[in-house]
Amino acid sequence: MAAADMTATILTIGDELLIGQIVNTNAAWIGEQLTLRGVEVIRSVTVGDSSRVIQDELGRALEAGRIVIMTGGLGPTHDDVTKHAVADFFGDRLTMRSEVLEAVEARFASRGIPVLDANRDQALAPESFQAVVNRAGTAPALIRGTKTPKGKGLVALLPGVPHEMQHFMEEAVLPEIEKLGVHGAIAHQTILTAGLGESLVHERLAGIEAFLARNVFLAYLPNIHGVRVRMTVRAATSDEAASRLEEVVAWACDRLGELVYGLGEDSLEGALGRALRLRGYTVSVAESCTGGLIAHRITNVAGASDYMVGGVVSYGNSVKSGLLGVDTSVLAAHGAVSEQVARSMAEGMRAALGSDTAISTTGIMGPGGGSPDKPVGTVWVGLALPDRTETRLLRLGMSRLRNKERAAAQAMNELRILLGKER
Amino acid sequence: MAAADMTATILTIGDELLIGQIVNTNAAWIGEQLTLRGVEVIRSVTVGDSSRVIQDELGRALEAGRIVIMTGGLGPTHDDVTKHAVADFFGDRLTMRSEVLEAVEARFASRGIPVLDANRDQALAPESFQAVVNRAGTAPALIRGTKTPKGKGLVALLPGVPHEMQHFMEEAVLPEIEKLGVHGAIAHQTILTAGLGESLVHERLAGIEAFLARNVFLAYLPNIHGVRVRMTVRAATSDEAASRLEEVVAWACDRLGELVYGLGEDSLEGALGRALRLRGYTVSVAESCTGGLIAHRITNVAGASDYMVGGVVSYGNSVKSGLLGVDTSVLAAHGAVSEQVARSMAEGMRAALGSDTAISTTGIMGPGGGSPDKPVGTVWVGLALPDRTETRLLRLGMSRLRNKERAAAQAMNELRILLGKER
Repeated sequence: MAAADMTATILTIGDELLIGQIVNTNAAWIGEQLTLRGVEVIRSVTVGDSSRVIQDELGRALEAGRIVIMTGGLGPTHDDVTKHAVADFFGDRLTMRSEVLEAVEARFASRGIPVLDANRDQALAPESFQAVVNRAGTAPALIRGTKTPKGKGLVALLPGVPHEMQHFMEEAVLPEIEKLGVHGAIAHQTILTAGLGESLVHERLAGIEAFLARNVFLAYLPNIHGVRVRMTVRAATSDEAASRLEEVVAWACDRLGELVYGLGEDSLEGALGRALRLRGYTVSVAESCTGGLIAHRITNVAGASDYMVGGVVSYGNSVKSGLLGVDTSVLAAHGAVSEQVARSMAEGMRAALGSDTAISTTGIMGPGGGSPDKPVGTVWVGLALPDRTETRLLRLGMSRLRNKERAAAQAMNELRILLGKER
Repeated sequence: MAAADMTATILTIGDELLIGQIVNTNAAWIGEQLTLRGVEVIRSVTVGDSSRVIQDELGRALEAGRIVIMTGGLGPTHDDVTKHAVADFFGDRLTMRSEVLEAVEARFASRGIPVLDANRDQALAPESFQAVVNRAGTAPALIRGTKTPKGKGLVALLPGVPHEMQHFMEEAVLPEIEKLGVHGAIAHQTILTAGLGESLVHERLAGIEAFLARNVFLAYLPNIHGVRVRMTVRAATSDEAASRLEEVVAWACDRLGELVYGLGEDSLEGALGRALRLRGYTVSVAESCTGGLIAHRITNVAGASDYMVGGVVSYGNSVKSGLLGVDTSVLAAHGAVSEQVARSMAEGMRAALGSDTAISTTGIMGPGGGSPDKPVGTVWVGLALPDRTETRLLRLGMSRLRNKERAAAQAMNELRILLGKER
């Protein structure tokens, strides 16, 4: 459990957040990471790029808790005032940090871009702060310990770019927070499922109430690829939390069976890759309506070239008949969006690239192109295996982008399940 | 101008926000709506379901500004404390609102569900508040006027469910805010650029200070596709704001030149599509390292089939030589990641599908595969036009997924710029 005294404020800075131009995903991510470490987030505050307001909030945050995580307002342009505001707050001069400066200069040099004074100024840091070099950008992280009414604390200033902020949190800030001494522990795991909706996943987990009574928390998080089941366990020690988490996750995975494609940060494309490797199979992709998205997702996995041969995006019918060898008479008789064409595309792709398996998609993604017979959202998927070809009919919605995502996910999931059944 | 005195605080309530289980999209939406009406959002605060903390924040908000929009913590479950906290703050008793009660009972009756006491309690409202019936849920909106140090103000409590909150804002809260007399208006526009980093975009806009002095506000928002430049103009009337915005946007677009691919919600793929249509050209895509992402993005645009013929994902070298006709001796002599292969892929793709233009990519996306000669992040782009083929060398970073996104964006942007120069 979160130590009652280990409390934090998240302070996100930027006019673009206040006026709603961007959604504050940083605050959610930081809140989650702190919570997982047993830190209680008591307030999350967003203010604009105003020095006075930033100082007010920093002062309040250090009265209310021991940890303050600030993000945003550290860029090279004139609208970024966080660093100066914080320096004034602590009565710090700004000093040039040679390590940061060298990293900034090296970064620009490697790209052949001139370094501007504004970029060099990013190596200036308030003197009481440690400046951690940014490997993914230019603004460093600034961290210092501090005394608070509730005990030893910490103030961190991080860039607002999400992946830079996340990197700094994991590498520099969270380790420092752990040193402050957090009591109790939380462990969590997310079970990733595809193939059924939220209520049916919930039904499969009937009986989980026995676990819930024992400090196990459950959340169903549906997204376009499926339903994620998030499980959080609180316990006195991290060992106890981990072992109880393992128990409930194993129980749930057993109930969910083939719906489960992975845990945590796994992806459908990663799961498909593992299924292909397990059988020693290669794959190729013939995409009409998904327009390259399946190939894109498969190749997001590092090392995918071991099993991904390639693909064809057959947007025009001439590509279907040309590169994929779909018979023009089949196209004429059944239309491009048909079971026959999906089958022929998958088989043609498999033959053209000599892969063991192939996925094909052909459908009507919208907003235009639907008919009473084949409304927007009609998609045929072909799945060619060494010994046979299967097809699937999907009935999706009206949104083009969502349809592409859902068709890609379902097509990959169907091949994953088919490969899992092969013995 | 947003009346200097018409300032607001957004107060979102819920432990699930603090622990990062859900992202605070409500704050962004409310911030945007208030900004559009000329209300200046000075702070957005999230706190947990704690009566004392909610009262503290409400008190602060009413000292700092005239408007407080609170969402969340109005549901029927025991952790929803907002209503009681606010009633105590104003010294109100809770009174039963028959109109709300009838609506709740009718809602449950129409679904054949029994009404629980917890649901009936949703019709209890602090006596000084107006209770607005919820047509989409059960919790009513609660609204009252109030005096603040800065003048007449307003406090609104809204449910946390986004579509219910939005409905109440539009139907009940924003009209009340307009009655408070918002002077002046804000207009904003975002200029979308690709091709240069934040500091160089900033340099191109040297001289913009003359506008900034006149109530024009500027923010640079870099993302993986480029730098967005957001301009906000405050003026006495919405007409004046619009015309001054037009003036500064035109000035900035002129300075930024070919970097600008669009405004507002435009996308690079949309801009490329427009450039192709303007010339009556078709395009095809031969993707090695981007793995289908360019084709995916191009086909995200509704109507892309007018100019997108198709593509090949040539992950294996056999696909480069097979479907794209890249000479195996060129592959052997220069390696797959080379200017020669990028050129040959683009020309081969253009010839194979008979398109007017073609884009190709070949590179090393990481994490593995780099060499001193060709480190991770090395990407060659080929751009085949009817009369010539150009190539570009990109030097990207170490992250596979970011490299794919950046290479796809830069390749599309380069073709867009080339097409713009054709006369």
